[in-house]
Amino acid sequence: MKRFLRRFGRGELPLGRLEAFSDGVFAIIVTLLVLELHVPALGAHADSSGELGRQLVALLPKFLSWLISFVIVCKFWLNHHHIMELASHANYGLIWLNSIFLMFQSLVPFPTGVMGEYPENSLAVSLFGVVMAVNTLIFIVLHAYILKNLLKPEVADEQDPQVIRKSMLGPAFYLLGAGMAWVSPWLAFGLYGITPLFFITPVTREKKPA
Amino acid sequence: MKRFLRRFGRGELPLGRLEAFSDGVFAIIVTLLVLELHVPALGAHADSSGELGRQLVALLPKFLSWLISFVIVCKFWLNHHHIMELASHANYGLIWLNSIFLMFQSLVPFPTGVMGEYPENSLAVSLFGVVMAVNTLIFIVLHAYILKNLLKPEVADEQDPQVIRKSMLGPAFYLLGAGMAWVSPWLAFGLYGITPLFFITPVTREKKPA
Amino acid sequence: MKRFLRRFGRGELPLGRLEAFSDGVFAIIVTLLVLELHVPALGAHADSSGELGRQLVALLPKFLSWLISFVIVCKFWLNHHHIMELASHANYGLIWLNSIFLMFQSLVPFPTGVMGEYPENSLAVSLFGVVMAVNTLIFIVLHAYILKNLLKPEVADEQDPQVIRKSMLGPAFYLLGAGMAWVSPWLAFGLYGITPLFFITPVTREKKPA
Amino acid sequence: MKRFLRRFGRGELPLGRLEAFSDGVFAIIVTLLVLELHVPALGAHADSSGELGRQLVALLPKFLSWLISFVIVCKFWLNHHHIMELASHANYGLIWLNSIFLMFQSLVPFPTGVMGEYPENSLAVSLFGVVMAVNTLIFIVLHAYILKNLLKPEVADEQDPQVIRKSMLGPAFYLLGAGMAWVSPWLAFGLYGITPLFFITPVTREKKPA
Repeated sequence: MKRFLRRFGRGELPLGRLEAFSDGVFAIIVTLLVLELHVPALGAHADSSGELGRQLVALLPKFLSWLISFVIVCKFWLNHHHIMELASHANYGLIWLNSIFLMFQSLVPFPTGVMGEYPENSLAVSLFGVVMAVNTLIFIVLHAYILKNLLKPEVADEQDPQVIRKSMLGPAFYLLGAGMAWVSPWLAFGLYGITPLFFITPVTREKKPA
Repeated sequence: MKRFLRRFGRGELPLGRLEAFSDGVFAIIVTLLVLELHVPALGAHADSSGELGRQLVALLPKFLSWLISFVIVCKFWLNHHHIMELASHANYGLIWLNSIFLMFQSLVPFPTGVMGEYPENSLAVSLFGVVMAVNTLIFIVLHAYILKNLLKPEVADEQDPQVIRKSMLGPAFYLLGAGMAWVSPWLAFGLYGITPLFFITPVTREKKPA
Repeated sequence: MKRFLRRFGRGELPLGRLEAFSDGVFAIIVTLLVLELHVPALGAHADSSGELGRQLVALLPKFLSWLISFVIVCKFWLNHHHIMELASHANYGLIWLNSIFLMFQSLVPFPTGVMGEYPENSLAVSLFGVVMAVNTLIFIVLHAYILKNLLKPEVADEQDPQVIRKSMLGPAFYLLGAGMAWVSPWLAFGLYGITPLFFITPVTREKKPA
Repeated sequence: MKRFLRRFGRGELPLGRLEAFSDGVFAIIVTLLVLELHVPALGAHADSSGELGRQLVALLPKFLSWLISFVIVCKFWLNHHHIMELASHANYGLIWLNSIFLMFQSLVPFPTGVMGEYPENSLAVSLFGVVMAVNTLIFIVLHAYILKNLLKPEVADEQDPQVIRKSMLGPAFYLLGAGMAWVSPWLAFGLYGITPLFFITPVTREKKPA
């Protein structure tokens, strides 16, 4: 087991291709999200603006899910960019943690679709929060791994020693939302929408002006 | 609130990854547009060229919608490239304005599909114009933000001071089309098709020969 | 009109972002092709290998269409890379010709799907050839435009002056296939499969050894 | 024939665009995998968490297929990156072998979907193993081609002369799984899940410490 784990410390790869692969996955995820917005079927009322209007209004929960997920994935993209800037290189450990992170990111369209389709189903809305909490946790592990093993010496001083602890607010909020979904799904929607706003700029850059 | 807004002025990121992410989103949008062109269901007439021909003709409004959207997104891509060239770097404000812009870009396949499916439904055709007007407006905000906050000193002289005002023609035309859709959807199609041609090359490069 | 056309000669953009955008589109096209291969519906026979086997065999025309299109798009990608290497920079004319080329490339999954679904329908098989002929013609225009307007001086001597004429073999073969589809669809399949093999390496590199 | 083959030795292209194209394809494949996870149809039970829960449990084989494929494709991505690092440049032979490799990679969502849909159908589970064995074999051919024809002189000493032989374990395991699928599909699932773990870091980097 130890020998298995030791392999991950090996490898000294440039970060460029890791970022290109990750950027590709992020770009596809945000764009695929829109595929959940199906063209409404109007049947015999193809020319009726009223009928189309009603069906577009019925799509509002899907638009809302799409909007929330889009903001969350963009927030991950920005923070991902930020933590990759901290690393001196990529070893196999980073590559695989990053792959696991991307795996859960690529899952995002599924709970987004489920929540958009069933916005008043507690499990559907709860599932969204749980998946986002897991995503954030894996991201925190990735961040901590870089801080511990791959940090560029020149940026070591700028790091907020509390950053990992502060980041835990993210999963806490998503799980709170996942719990609230059982009381009021719409309250959970609200919490999901607000949570990424706290992390809209990378935490560690919050420096006090001199 | 002020403190919240101030965070966006921070960050000094290279533009490369922002462009890579944006290019990925643009590339996926233009390619996803074709997914609205479903293979026709011929049922028992699988071998009938006549039946397939009739169904392909019935797809013409979808082809037309696809064509218009493709040209519009490519036009955005070119102009996006142009304004990114003007920026010295990316701060968080630019990154988030860009994300909001990409969010509305990624929405394009939806109104394209709706308009292609219901080309004689006034609301469907009108929706397309409204979404494009919003997209153009956000792009103009992005452009203005760069001009005001992030302009490279060496290109400052080349900027047309009227560029933002001139760009407003775009949303005006799309909204005009959105209005016309209630009178004649096909006239609106025409206007949507013509509008991007005015912005087919970036406005600010229109320099008078010496 | 002349003034409109003159705008396309302007612009001196680095080729990097044009290639990144094009590579993105190519990558998405080849990967989307597989989406036409739907998981067969086995209904009550979910556990029957025999039934699944029969349905997989029935998918063979789709596999064949996919294979042919994949090779053709990869061939375009390679040749696209080759001609972009010849250009000193990108002006707006190149960018828009390239966008039109990518537009027709992104259309490829549609005729591929139609031909795979209706392999014995003459129009379906013919359509594939026509779309490929148009794609190749646009590519030739792109190539000729670079040779005439944007050729790097250092590679000017290496260009085969007959290259554009030789390239016309491609559209000729695809149109021949499109015609043959009305006699024997399967013969057309064969011709479509063979044609890209003639252009599997860029034509202009065919230099005589000294 | 010989003349045909000789063409592939020609061409001296930078590896950058080949990698960009490949990264794009990899990124799209891993992200498309999730499209097989359809939002369950709850019909009249839209608000029932119990019904949604049951349907999510029924999706478990699809999640498992997705997970296995995701890990396998990421493993290919990492190893692909590794072998591309060994090549001094790309000739047409490498480009076409790479295209064939990407073609079979892009096929992965199909057997993944079939296996996820029919996890107890022996042919479905067997097909997955066969496709993965073919993928691994093509990858080995690509690797061997680079080692023989395009190896950078400076990394020649570091290569394990047994690497190709060792890599054959991969296809052997997948084929073993494909055989086991006829006895017990779930055992095959297990074997598919374990196999990539042996190749989770590139084989040739396994250097003995001095």
